[in-house]
Amino acid sequence: MHVVVNAAMSADGKLSSRRREQIRISGHEDFARVDALRADCDAVMVGVGTVLADDPHLTVEDPDLRAERRERGDSDHPARVVADTRARTPPDARVLDDVARSYVAVGETAPDDRCGALRDADAHLVTAGTERVDLAAALAELETDGIDRLLIEGGGELLFSAFETGVVDELSVFVGSQIIGGRDAPTLADGEGFVDEFPELTLAAADRLDDGIVLSYTVAD
Amino acid sequence: MHVVVNAAMSADGKLSSRRREQIRISGHEDFARVDALRADCDAVMVGVGTVLADDPHLTVEDPDLRAERRERGDSDHPARVVADTRARTPPDARVLDDVARSYVAVGETAPDDRCGALRDADAHLVTAGTERVDLAAALAELETDGIDRLLIEGGGELLFSAFETGVVDELSVFVGSQIIGGRDAPTLADGEGFVDEFPELTLAAADRLDDGIVLSYTVAD
Repeated sequence: MHVVVNAAMSADGKLSSRRREQIRISGHEDFARVDALRADCDAVMVGVGTVLADDPHLTVEDPDLRAERRERGDSDHPARVVADTRARTPPDARVLDDVARSYVAVGETAPDDRCGALRDADAHLVTAGTERVDLAAALAELETDGIDRLLIEGGGELLFSAFETGVVDELSVFVGSQIIGGRDAPTLADGEGFVDEFPELTLAAADRLDDGIVLSYTVAD
Repeated sequence: MHVVVNAAMSADGKLSSRRREQIRISGHEDFARVDALRADCDAVMVGVGTVLADDPHLTVEDPDLRAERRERGDSDHPARVVADTRARTPPDARVLDDVARSYVAVGETAPDDRCGALRDADAHLVTAGTERVDLAAALAELETDGIDRLLIEGGGELLFSAFETGVVDELSVFVGSQIIGGRDAPTLADGEGFVDEFPELTLAAADRLDDGIVLSYTVAD
Protein backbone atom coordinates (compact mmCIF):
# COMPACT_ATOMS: atom_id res chain seq x y z
CA MET A 1 0.00 0.00 0.00
CA HIS A 2 1.18 3.51 -0.81
CA VAL A 3 0.49 5.96 2.01
CA VAL A 4 0.38 9.73 1.56
CA VAL A 5 0.05 12.10 4.52
CA ASN A 6 -1.37 15.56 3.95
CA ALA A 7 -1.88 18.32 6.46
CA ALA A 8 -2.11 22.08 6.81
CA MET A 9 -0.21 23.66 9.65
CA SER A 10 0.56 27.20 10.80
CA ALA A 11 4.08 28.60 10.47
CA ASP A 12 4.70 27.27 13.98
CA GLY A 13 3.55 23.73 13.19
CA LYS A 14 0.02 23.76 14.66
CA LEU A 15 -3.02 22.07 13.10
CA SER A 16 -5.39 24.04 15.33
CA SER A 17 -5.43 26.08 18.52
CA ARG A 18 -5.50 24.61 22.01
CA ARG A 19 -9.30 24.76 21.73
CA ARG A 20 -9.04 22.31 18.81
CA GLU A 21 -11.49 24.33 16.76
CA GLN A 22 -11.14 24.18 13.01
CA ILE A 23 -8.99 27.09 11.83
CA ARG A 24 -8.69 28.17 8.22
CA ILE A 25 -4.96 27.76 7.66
CA SER A 26 -4.89 27.50 3.85
CA GLY A 27 -7.19 28.75 1.07
CA HIS A 28 -8.95 27.84 -2.17
CA GLU A 29 -5.84 26.76 -4.04
CA ASP A 30 -4.87 24.37 -1.30
CA PHE A 31 -8.43 23.01 -1.01
CA ALA A 32 -8.28 22.19 -4.72
CA ARG A 33 -4.89 20.50 -4.24
CA VAL A 34 -6.26 18.36 -1.39
CA ASP A 35 -9.37 17.55 -3.43
CA ALA A 36 -7.12 16.19 -6.20
CA LEU A 37 -5.08 14.21 -3.65
CA ARG A 38 -8.30 12.64 -2.37
CA ALA A 39 -9.52 11.87 -5.89
CA ASP A 40 -6.24 10.09 -6.53
CA CYS A 41 -6.63 7.71 -3.57
CA ASP A 42 -8.69 4.63 -2.76
CA ALA A 43 -9.38 5.79 0.78
CA VAL A 44 -8.96 8.82 3.04
CA MET A 45 -8.18 8.24 6.73
CA VAL A 46 -8.50 10.48 9.78
CA GLY A 47 -8.35 9.93 13.53
CA VAL A 48 -11.50 9.96 15.62
CA GLY A 49 -10.37 13.19 17.28
CA THR A 50 -10.68 14.92 13.92
CA VAL A 51 -14.15 13.41 13.38
CA LEU A 52 -15.31 14.59 16.81
CA ALA A 53 -13.80 18.08 16.38
CA ASP A 54 -14.59 18.85 12.73
CA ASP A 55 -17.10 16.27 11.46
CA PRO A 56 -15.40 16.21 8.02
CA HIS A 57 -16.99 14.58 4.97
CA LEU A 58 -13.71 13.60 3.24
CA THR A 59 -15.35 13.43 -0.17
CA VAL A 60 -14.22 14.77 -3.56
CA GLU A 61 -15.81 18.18 -4.23
CA ASP A 62 -14.85 18.77 -7.86
CA PRO A 63 -17.37 17.10 -10.24
CA ASP A 64 -14.64 16.77 -12.91
CA LEU A 65 -12.46 14.79 -10.54
CA ARG A 66 -15.42 12.56 -9.67
CA ALA A 67 -16.11 12.03 -13.39
CA GLU A 68 -12.47 11.04 -13.92
CA ARG A 69 -12.79 8.50 -11.11
CA ARG A 70 -15.93 7.03 -12.69
CA GLU A 71 -14.23 6.86 -16.10
CA ARG A 72 -11.51 4.68 -14.66
CA GLY A 73 -14.07 2.45 -12.98
CA ASP A 74 -13.84 3.82 -9.46
CA SER A 75 -16.60 5.03 -7.18
CA ASP A 76 -17.27 8.78 -7.14
CA HIS A 77 -15.47 9.16 -3.83
CA PRO A 78 -12.68 7.28 -2.09
CA ALA A 79 -13.66 5.25 0.96
CA ARG A 80 -13.40 6.97 4.35
CA VAL A 81 -11.51 5.34 7.23
CA VAL A 82 -11.60 6.44 10.86
CA ALA A 83 -8.90 5.25 13.27
CA ASP A 84 -10.98 4.91 16.40
CA THR A 85 -9.72 2.53 19.11
CA ARG A 86 -12.78 2.85 21.36
CA ALA A 87 -15.43 3.19 18.62
CA ARG A 88 -16.34 6.76 19.57
CA THR A 89 -17.32 7.82 16.05
CA PRO A 90 -20.92 9.15 16.23
CA PRO A 91 -23.18 6.97 14.04
CA ASP A 92 -24.45 10.17 12.41
CA ALA A 93 -20.96 11.43 11.57
CA ARG A 94 -20.68 12.70 7.99
CA VAL A 95 -17.86 10.21 7.24
CA LEU A 96 -20.40 7.42 7.75
CA ASP A 97 -23.01 8.74 5.33
CA ASP A 98 -23.96 6.75 2.26
CA VAL A 99 -22.18 8.75 -0.45
CA ALA A 100 -19.08 6.58 -0.04
CA ARG A 101 -17.92 3.38 1.64
CA SER A 102 -16.84 3.83 5.26
CA TYR A 103 -14.50 1.90 7.52
CA VAL A 104 -13.90 2.32 11.22
CA ALA A 105 -10.69 0.74 12.54
CA VAL A 106 -11.31 -0.16 16.19
CA GLY A 107 -9.39 -1.89 18.96
CA GLU A 108 -10.34 -5.33 20.27
CA THR A 109 -11.65 -3.78 23.48
CA ALA A 110 -14.05 -1.36 21.77
CA PRO A 111 -17.51 -1.60 23.46
CA ASP A 112 -19.86 -4.01 21.65
CA ASP A 113 -22.80 -1.62 21.72
CA ARG A 114 -20.84 1.12 20.00
CA CYS A 115 -19.50 -1.30 17.42
CA GLY A 116 -23.06 -2.48 16.81
CA ALA A 117 -24.26 1.09 16.33
CA LEU A 118 -21.49 1.68 13.79
CA ARG A 119 -22.40 -1.51 11.90
CA ASP A 120 -26.03 -0.35 11.93
CA ALA A 121 -24.79 2.84 10.28
CA ASP A 122 -23.31 0.64 7.51
CA ALA A 123 -19.71 1.18 8.61
CA HIS A 124 -17.28 -1.66 7.90
CA LEU A 125 -15.41 -2.46 11.09
CA VAL A 126 -11.74 -3.42 11.03
CA THR A 127 -10.52 -4.75 14.37
CA ALA A 128 -6.79 -4.43 15.00
CA GLY A 129 -4.84 -3.88 18.23
CA THR A 130 -5.97 -3.47 21.84
CA GLU A 131 -4.82 -0.33 23.67
CA ARG A 132 -4.51 1.47 20.36
CA VAL A 133 -5.44 0.61 16.81
CA ASP A 134 -2.61 -1.45 15.29
CA LEU A 135 -2.14 0.70 12.22
CA ALA A 136 0.00 -1.76 10.26
CA ALA A 137 -2.55 -4.56 10.79
CA ALA A 138 -5.48 -2.28 9.97
CA LEU A 139 -3.82 -1.09 6.75
CA ALA A 140 -3.02 -4.68 5.78
CA GLU A 141 -6.69 -5.60 6.15
CA LEU A 142 -7.76 -2.55 4.14
CA GLU A 143 -5.32 -3.62 1.42
CA THR A 144 -7.04 -7.00 1.13
CA ASP A 145 -10.19 -4.97 0.47
CA GLY A 146 -8.56 -3.30 -2.55
CA ILE A 147 -7.22 -0.15 -0.92
CA ASP A 148 -3.81 0.31 -2.50
CA ARG A 149 -3.40 4.06 -2.13
CA LEU A 150 -4.32 5.72 1.18
CA LEU A 151 -4.38 9.40 2.09
CA ILE A 152 -4.05 10.15 5.82
CA GLU A 153 -5.21 13.66 6.72
CA GLY A 154 -4.63 13.84 10.49
CA GLY A 155 -4.87 14.66 13.32
CA GLY A 156 -1.53 14.78 15.02
CA GLU A 157 -1.99 11.63 17.10
CA LEU A 158 -2.80 9.50 14.03
CA LEU A 159 0.00 11.10 12.02
CA PHE A 160 2.55 10.33 14.73
CA SER A 161 1.32 6.71 14.81
CA ALA A 162 1.68 6.56 11.03
CA PHE A 163 5.30 7.76 11.18
CA GLU A 164 6.03 5.54 14.19
CA THR A 165 4.67 2.50 12.36
CA GLY A 166 6.78 3.42 9.34
CA VAL A 167 3.92 3.22 6.85
CA VAL A 168 4.25 6.73 5.38
CA ASP A 169 5.67 7.05 1.85
CA GLU A 170 4.98 10.73 1.17
CA LEU A 171 4.18 13.83 3.21
CA SER A 172 2.78 17.07 1.87
CA VAL A 173 2.22 19.93 4.24
CA PHE A 174 0.76 23.34 3.56
CA VAL A 175 2.55 25.83 5.80
CA GLY A 176 0.23 28.74 6.49
CA SER A 177 1.28 32.32 7.15
CA GLN A 178 0.06 32.73 10.70
CA ILE A 179 1.17 31.91 14.25
CA ILE A 180 -1.21 29.81 16.36
CA GLY A 181 1.06 29.02 19.30
CA GLY A 182 0.26 27.00 22.41
CA ARG A 183 2.11 24.22 24.14
CA ASP A 184 -1.18 22.25 24.21
CA ALA A 185 -2.23 22.96 20.62
CA PRO A 186 -2.22 19.95 18.27
CA THR A 187 0.76 19.71 15.94
CA LEU A 188 1.47 17.77 12.76
CA ALA A 189 2.89 14.88 14.78
CA ASP A 190 1.92 14.54 18.44
CA GLY A 191 1.89 11.22 20.33
CA GLU A 192 4.86 10.30 22.51
CA GLY A 193 7.31 11.69 19.98
CA PHE A 194 10.65 10.33 18.86
CA VAL A 195 13.79 10.84 20.95
CA ASP A 196 16.22 9.43 18.41
CA GLU A 197 16.14 7.78 14.98
CA PHE A 198 13.88 10.57 13.75
CA PRO A 199 12.13 9.65 10.49
CA GLU A 200 14.14 11.27 7.71
CA LEU A 201 12.41 13.02 4.84
CA THR A 202 13.60 14.27 1.47
CA LEU A 203 12.25 17.64 0.37
CA ALA A 204 11.05 16.96 -3.17
CA ALA A 205 9.26 20.23 -3.91
CA ALA A 206 8.28 23.58 -2.42
CA ASP A 207 5.40 25.36 -4.13
CA ARG A 208 3.88 28.72 -3.22
CA LEU A 209 0.11 28.36 -2.91
CA ASP A 210 -2.51 30.76 -1.53
CA ASP A 211 -0.56 32.91 0.94
CA GLY A 212 1.60 30.01 2.10
CA ILE A 213 3.73 27.20 0.73
CA VAL A 214 3.32 23.47 0.19
CA LEU A 215 6.32 21.37 1.18
CA SER A 216 6.33 17.92 -0.44
CA TYR A 217 8.52 15.22 1.01
CA THR A 218 9.28 11.61 0.36
CA VAL A 219 10.01 9.43 3.37
CA ALA A 220 13.18 7.35 3.54
CA ASP A 221 12.60 3.61 4.06
CA MET B 1 13.59 48.57 17.85
CA HIS B 2 13.58 46.11 14.97
CA VAL B 3 13.03 42.52 16.16
CA VAL B 4 13.91 39.46 14.10
CA VAL B 5 12.98 35.95 15.23
CA ASN B 6 14.98 33.03 13.92
CA ALA B 7 14.50 29.35 14.64
CA ALA B 8 15.06 25.90 13.19
CA MET B 9 12.19 23.45 13.45
CA SER B 10 11.47 19.96 12.16
CA ALA B 11 8.91 19.43 9.39
CA ASP B 12 6.34 18.99 12.18
CA GLY B 13 7.20 22.25 13.93
CA LYS B 14 9.37 21.00 16.82
CA LEU B 15 12.48 22.75 18.12
CA SER B 16 13.60 19.64 19.98
CA SER B 17 12.24 16.34 21.26
CA ARG B 18 10.23 15.92 24.46
CA ARG B 19 13.59 15.36 26.20
CA ARG B 20 14.55 18.91 25.18
CA GLU B 21 17.99 17.78 24.09
CA GLN B 22 19.65 19.77 21.33
CA ILE B 23 18.90 18.14 17.97
CA ARG B 24 20.73 18.98 14.76
CA ILE B 25 17.83 20.14 12.60
CA SER B 26 19.74 22.20 10.02
CA GLY B 27 23.31 22.10 8.67
CA HIS B 28 26.35 24.17 7.75
CA GLU B 29 24.58 26.47 5.31
CA ASP B 30 21.96 27.37 7.88
CA PHE B 31 24.58 27.86 10.61
CA ALA B 32 26.30 30.38 8.30
CA ARG B 33 22.96 32.12 7.66
CA VAL B 34 22.30 32.42 11.40
CA ASP B 35 25.86 33.63 12.00
CA ALA B 36 25.23 36.45 9.52
CA LEU B 37 21.89 37.26 11.17
CA ARG B 38 23.68 37.54 14.53
CA ALA B 39 26.44 39.69 13.07
CA ASP B 40 23.76 42.03 11.73
CA CYS B 41 22.18 42.62 15.16
CA ASP B 42 23.02 44.59 18.28
CA ALA B 43 21.91 41.79 20.59
CA VAL B 44 20.80 38.15 20.50
CA MET B 45 18.12 37.01 22.95
CA VAL B 46 17.10 33.57 24.20
CA GLY B 47 14.94 32.27 27.02
CA VAL B 48 16.47 30.79 30.15
CA GLY B 49 15.12 27.35 29.15
CA THR B 50 17.41 27.41 26.13
CA VAL B 51 20.36 28.47 28.30
CA LEU B 52 19.70 25.64 30.76
CA ALA B 53 19.17 23.04 28.00
CA ASP B 54 21.87 23.99 25.49
CA ASP B 55 24.26 26.48 27.15
CA PRO B 56 24.66 28.41 23.87
CA HIS B 57 27.35 31.05 23.33
CA LEU B 58 25.37 33.21 20.85
CA THR B 59 28.54 34.73 19.41
CA VAL B 60 29.57 35.36 15.79
CA GLU B 61 31.75 32.52 14.53
CA ASP B 62 32.94 33.87 11.19
CA PRO B 63 36.08 36.09 11.64
CA ASP B 64 35.17 38.05 8.49
CA LEU B 65 31.78 38.95 9.96
CA ARG B 66 33.48 40.04 13.19
CA ALA B 67 35.93 42.16 11.19
CA GLU B 68 33.01 43.82 9.38
CA ARG B 69 31.44 44.61 12.73
CA ARG B 70 34.69 46.18 13.98
CA GLU B 71 35.04 48.20 10.76
CA ARG B 72 31.67 49.81 11.39
CA GLY B 73 32.62 50.55 14.99
CA ASP B 74 30.76 47.72 16.69
CA SER B 75 32.04 45.17 19.17
CA ASP B 76 33.13 41.80 17.73
CA HIS B 77 29.93 40.18 18.95
CA PRO B 78 26.40 41.39 19.59
CA ALA B 79 25.31 41.54 23.22
CA ARG B 80 23.57 38.47 24.65
CA VAL B 81 20.21 38.79 26.45
CA VAL B 82 18.54 36.09 28.53
CA ALA B 83 14.83 36.37 29.35
CA ASP B 84 14.86 34.85 32.81
CA THR B 85 12.03 35.79 35.19
CA ARG B 86 13.46 34.00 38.25
CA ALA B 87 17.16 34.62 37.55
CA ARG B 88 17.95 30.95 36.99
CA THR B 89 20.79 31.56 34.53
CA PRO B 90 23.89 29.80 35.92
CA PRO B 91 26.62 32.39 36.60
CA ASP B 92 29.03 30.21 34.60
CA ALA B 93 26.73 30.03 31.56
CA ARG B 94 28.55 30.68 28.29
CA VAL B 95 26.25 33.62 27.48
CA LEU B 96 27.69 35.41 30.50
CA ASP B 97 31.35 35.04 29.56
CA ASP B 98 33.47 38.10 28.84
CA VAL B 99 33.70 37.93 25.04
CA ALA B 100 30.56 40.07 24.74
CA ARG B 101 28.24 42.21 26.83
CA SER B 102 25.48 40.24 28.60
CA TYR B 103 22.06 41.18 29.88
CA VAL B 104 19.65 39.14 31.97
CA ALA B 105 16.04 40.35 31.94
CA VAL B 106 14.51 39.30 35.27
CA GLY B 107 11.18 39.73 37.03
CA GLU B 108 10.77 41.95 40.08
CA THR B 109 10.41 38.86 42.29
CA ALA B 110 13.68 37.25 41.19
CA PRO B 111 15.63 36.14 44.31
CA ASP B 112 18.20 38.72 45.43
CA ASP B 113 20.98 36.17 45.91
CA ARG B 114 20.65 34.93 42.34
CA CYS B 115 20.52 38.45 40.98
CA GLY B 116 23.64 39.24 43.01
CA ALA B 117 25.43 36.20 41.58
CA LEU B 118 24.55 37.32 38.07
CA ARG B 119 25.85 40.83 38.73
CA ASP B 120 29.04 39.29 40.13
CA ALA B 121 29.34 37.51 36.78
CA ASP B 122 29.25 40.97 35.12
CA ALA B 123 25.72 40.51 33.73
CA HIS B 124 23.67 43.67 33.30
CA LEU B 125 20.29 43.12 34.93
CA VAL B 126 17.12 44.53 33.42
CA THR B 127 14.12 44.26 35.75
CA ALA B 128 10.71 44.23 34.08
CA GLY B 129 7.47 42.49 35.05
CA THR B 130 6.56 40.26 37.97
CA GLU B 131 5.08 36.82 37.15
CA ARG B 132 6.86 36.90 33.81
CA VAL B 133 9.38 39.20 32.23
CA ASP B 134 7.51 42.13 30.65
CA LEU B 135 9.06 41.80 27.22
CA ALA B 136 7.93 45.18 25.91
CA ALA B 137 9.36 46.97 28.95
CA ALA B 138 12.60 44.95 28.84
CA LEU B 139 13.08 45.73 25.13
CA ALA B 140 12.40 49.40 25.74
CA GLU B 141 15.13 49.47 28.37
CA LEU B 142 17.54 47.65 26.08
CA GLU B 143 16.79 50.21 23.38
CA THR B 144 17.87 53.04 25.69
CA ASP B 145 21.16 51.13 25.92
CA GLY B 146 21.63 51.36 22.15
CA ILE B 147 20.12 48.04 21.09
CA ASP B 148 18.17 48.93 17.96
CA ARG B 149 18.18 45.58 16.21
CA LEU B 150 17.45 42.43 18.23
CA LEU B 151 17.57 38.79 17.14
CA ILE B 152 15.43 36.41 19.23
CA GLU B 153 16.45 32.77 18.81
CA GLY B 154 14.00 30.91 21.06
CA GLY B 155 12.84 28.78 22.74
CA GLY B 156 9.15 28.37 22.13
CA GLU B 157 7.97 30.04 25.35
CA LEU B 158 9.94 33.23 24.65
CA LEU B 159 8.91 33.21 20.99
CA PHE B 160 5.22 32.98 21.90
CA SER B 161 5.68 35.88 24.33
CA ALA B 162 7.34 37.88 21.57
CA PHE B 163 4.41 37.31 19.19
CA GLU B 164 1.90 37.90 21.99
CA THR B 165 3.56 41.20 22.87
CA GLY B 166 3.51 42.15 19.20
CA VAL B 167 7.18 43.10 19.06
CA VAL B 168 8.21 40.80 16.17
CA ASP B 169 8.94 42.44 12.79
CA GLU B 170 10.41 39.47 10.91
CA LEU B 171 10.46 35.69 11.29
CA SER B 172 12.82 33.33 9.55
CA VAL B 173 12.47 29.63 10.15
CA PHE B 174 14.56 26.79 8.81
CA VAL B 175 12.25 23.83 8.24
CA GLY B 176 14.26 20.64 8.54
CA SER B 177 13.54 17.37 6.76
CA GLN B 178 12.76 15.14 9.70
CA ILE B 179 9.84 14.33 12.00
CA ILE B 180 10.40 14.76 15.74
CA GLY B 181 6.84 14.37 17.00
CA GLY B 182 5.58 14.54 20.56
CA ARG B 183 2.68 16.39 22.13
CA ASP B 184 5.11 17.56 24.84
CA ALA B 185 7.98 18.51 22.55
CA PRO B 186 8.77 22.23 22.33
CA THR B 187 7.48 24.02 19.24
CA LEU B 188 8.30 27.31 17.55
CA ALA B 189 5.60 29.06 19.61
CA ASP B 190 4.42 27.46 22.85
CA GLY B 191 2.96 29.42 25.77
CA GLU B 192 -0.81 29.65 26.16
CA GLY B 193 -1.34 29.99 22.44
CA PHE B 194 -3.73 32.21 20.54
CA VAL B 195 -7.38 31.22 20.10
CA ASP B 196 -8.28 34.04 17.71
CA GLU B 197 -6.64 37.09 16.14
CA PHE B 198 -3.70 34.91 15.13
CA PRO B 199 -0.67 37.02 14.20
CA GLU B 200 -0.63 37.23 10.41
CA LEU B 201 2.59 36.83 8.48
CA THR B 202 3.56 37.53 4.89
CA LEU B 203 5.78 34.95 3.23
CA ALA B 204 8.54 37.05 1.69
CA ALA B 205 10.92 34.31 0.55
CA ALA B 206 11.45 30.55 0.52
CA ASP B 207 15.02 29.41 -0.03
CA ARG B 208 16.30 25.82 -0.16
CA LEU B 209 19.25 25.42 2.19
CA ASP B 210 21.06 22.30 3.40
CA ASP B 211 18.44 19.54 3.10
CA GLY B 212 15.59 21.83 4.14
CA ILE B 213 14.13 25.24 3.42
CA VAL B 214 14.20 28.68 5.02
CA LEU B 215 10.87 30.46 5.13
CA SER B 216 11.19 34.22 5.64
CA TYR B 217 8.20 36.19 6.80
CA THR B 218 7.37 39.74 7.67
CA VAL B 219 4.84 40.31 10.44
CA ALA B 220 1.79 42.48 9.89
CA ASP B 221 1.45 45.38 12.34
